[in-house]
Amino acid sequence: MEFTQLTLQELLDLQKDLQSQFDVIKQANLKLDLTRGKPSAEQLSLSNSLDSILDAYFVLQDGTDVRNYGGILGIMEARILGSKMLGTRPDEVLAGGNSSLALMYQLINFAHLHGLQGPGTSWQAEAQQQQGQVKFLCPVPGYDRHFTICEFFGIEMINIAFNDDGPDMDKIEALVATDPLIKGIWCVPKYSNPTGHTYSDDTVRRMAALGNSAGANFRVMWDNAYVVHHLTDNPPRLLNIMEECRSKGTEDNLIITGSTSKITFAGGGISFLCSSRANIDALETHLTASVIGQDKVNQLRHVLFLKDQQHLLDHMQKHKQILRPKFDHVVKVLDAELAGKGMGSWTDPKGGYFISFDSLPGLAKKIIALAAELGVKLTPAGATFPYRQDVEDTNIRLAPTFPPIDDLDQAMKVFVVSVQLASVQQRIQQL
Amino acid sequence: MEFTQLTLQELLDLQKDLQSQFDVIKQANLKLDLTRGKPSAEQLSLSNSLDSILDAYFVLQDGTDVRNYGGILGIMEARILGSKMLGTRPDEVLAGGNSSLALMYQLINFAHLHGLQGPGTSWQAEAQQQQGQVKFLCPVPGYDRHFTICEFFGIEMINIAFNDDGPDMDKIEALVATDPLIKGIWCVPKYSNPTGHTYSDDTVRRMAALGNSAGANFRVMWDNAYVVHHLTDNPPRLLNIMEECRSKGTEDNLIITGSTSKITFAGGGISFLCSSRANIDALETHLTASVIGQDKVNQLRHVLFLKDQQHLLDHMQKHKQILRPKFDHVVKVLDAELAGKGMGSWTDPKGGYFISFDSLPGLAKKIIALAAELGVKLTPAGATFPYRQDVEDTNIRLAPTFPPIDDLDQAMKVFVVSVQLASVQQRIQQL
Repeated sequence: MEFTQLTLQELLDLQKDLQSQFDVIKQANLKLDLTRGKPSAEQLSLSNSLDSILDAYFVLQDGTDVRNYGGILGIMEARILGSKMLGTRPDEVLAGGNSSLALMYQLINFAHLHGLQGPGTSWQAEAQQQQGQVKFLCPVPGYDRHFTICEFFGIEMINIAFNDDGPDMDKIEALVATDPLIKGIWCVPKYSNPTGHTYSDDTVRRMAALGNSAGANFRVMWDNAYVVHHLTDNPPRLLNIMEECRSKGTEDNLIITGSTSKITFAGGGISFLCSSRANIDALETHLTASVIGQDKVNQLRHVLFLKDQQHLLDHMQKHKQILRPKFDHVVKVLDAELAGKGMGSWTDPKGGYFISFDSLPGLAKKIIALAAELGVKLTPAGATFPYRQDVEDTNIRLAPTFPPIDDLDQAMKVFVVSVQLASVQQRIQQL
Repeated sequence: MEFTQLTLQELLDLQKDLQSQFDVIKQANLKLDLTRGKPSAEQLSLSNSLDSILDAYFVLQDGTDVRNYGGILGIMEARILGSKMLGTRPDEVLAGGNSSLALMYQLINFAHLHGLQGPGTSWQAEAQQQQGQVKFLCPVPGYDRHFTICEFFGIEMINIAFNDDGPDMDKIEALVATDPLIKGIWCVPKYSNPTGHTYSDDTVRRMAALGNSAGANFRVMWDNAYVVHHLTDNPPRLLNIMEECRSKGTEDNLIITGSTSKITFAGGGISFLCSSRANIDALETHLTASVIGQDKVNQLRHVLFLKDQQHLLDHMQKHKQILRPKFDHVVKVLDAELAGKGMGSWTDPKGGYFISFDSLPGLAKKIIALAAELGVKLTPAGATFPYRQDVEDTNIRLAPTFPPIDDLDQAMKVFVVSVQLASVQQRIQQL
């Protein structure tokens, strides 16, 4: 029954009951953490053989000694691996270090300050000419690190709501058509962080077409971080955006990123940035100022370990076997304790690393504070929004991957009590 | 005999002789490269056991799983290693990825655009207020990658000449005292690239004192890239600049960098940036926008492999045994073929990766072109100067570390013929 149908007395009784549950849990002095989308130790151990895989084999077929300097674009063997994973040609891939975030940062850095199409094409210069400010579109809720990059460069962020099939394309197209200082959009097109959306074919096609109205200096930041991170046996399809861009002549408007962070070692993987040859060439030129080359040793480790796309997909099956029970358990507890009560809604994602919970308006901060009081750390309210501002104060990102399932069970019991208590308290105040 | 004492006829005969040597060598179709300060394969193999050293041991004493996310400042074990190598406290060290150049770039990036002392303290902002341009002092000849970073950010570079004991401190102090927009200086204080200078105690003390006149926003970029890269058993002393800065209250003005690139794997090592806690804290904050953490797996490999400063120094002895004969051979050929002829001067370095050759004025480009004609690639003329402008056109950087000694011998024969031919041709034209 929806809890709004309860009488005040029923609500007060319920509050008393919840408060006593709360007090009991508090005695347990829990210390649990549901904040970070980190792989568990069990997942990381799937890749332990990375470490000794080279067996004193350091020279590539083309004669390159991976131990030595050089190779801004990474080794071709790793670029091929990235191209298969992200759906581009190998020459359209830069294989980088342990962080695709670093590649995104560099790309924005160069585009904003220097210009990817040569002198005078920087976003900053364009904004100065037009006496305005560079802007980015941000589907929300989204990935906090994307927003941090924009904040770092003083790029203004505009929130875009999600529809079922991805971000609101009508709104996006209208904004891009009217404001030439909108220079990009952040997308996590598959199992979007944290909502779990996979963009529909139509959304991908319309995203690929944006460059034609937005101009040469616009970039779709296509962070395909969860491209192979399925939680079901029949994953939803994501259209190949590079092919769509190629057919529309907008490859220069597209920046695809991805990494092995959640495939092998989260902190010791390799990363990829894919784009048109023109962008890759520009990036190579710029990167010469800031790196001496990629860690080719670690790239070769990954090539030998993951071998090819089929082996990579087989490896991801092992991750799925570890992760699926955790996600199932979170959804089971939410269903059991909250379904039909009208205290919020949540996702049951087909892949990725998060479950997204939307509380009643104005309660996310309160729920997170209550859970903290019981020793369960949740991602701070607002973290999934630009400037950390969730104006509705509803979104809570749950990250079930890292804790063992027993901890997860305890943390979720804390969560559902916190949600109920906050909801009932608010309702009583309103009456 | 100095060749300037030869008669025109003697010069013409000599030219003919050199030309015929040149033509003979040309038939050999050599393809040799003396451009890059890269370790040889033999040196790299000294560290091959890095690869399998972890043996499924991925968890630090403090419980950190090095495979997972996190750790912008690197693992403490690696920071301790860096602190011993570079002469600071462990908490003053950031341990990074495979490139100390990347750390220098980031430091300049943050100082220039954002300010290391908080909002409003950026170099850029100061320059705008004073309607001038940010400037850096560059001892020349120097390291091209330092200059590239300045060019990238539009920082104006001012050449500073070397004296025997390091850069011309009188000049530096005078400039810093008069121009508040000079925001830093690039130093390679030990075995300077390419001249081989090691800064004297007095130079280090005066460098450490610069902050007191230059102000809070000035940075001494102390790139101690060759700190343990000795070629002799009695290496020259380099004073500990951090201690000097501490005694003068100028730790915030100091940025020390170094790496294991020329200790273990050139492309797969770890890097260090040392400075005051205030700077390290500021850097950590800024880096949060651009990385997900350092590659802690590779840092742990290095900790287990290099162990401590004594083991590191023992390891460097093995490098010395490989490198010393190469440097000796280059100097031997130069001495044998050019000594006393007045066609140039060269260094006999006690450490580092380069031999610096100064031709007669106006001949460096010509010599490099002649060597190229014979199939020997030398570092482009001017590369060791800001804006690639060696106004005297004299400096040539020789990098003897990478080629096998037979190749080195052939390359040096080409070099000395090229030097002589260019010098004689110029003299004949002048007469």
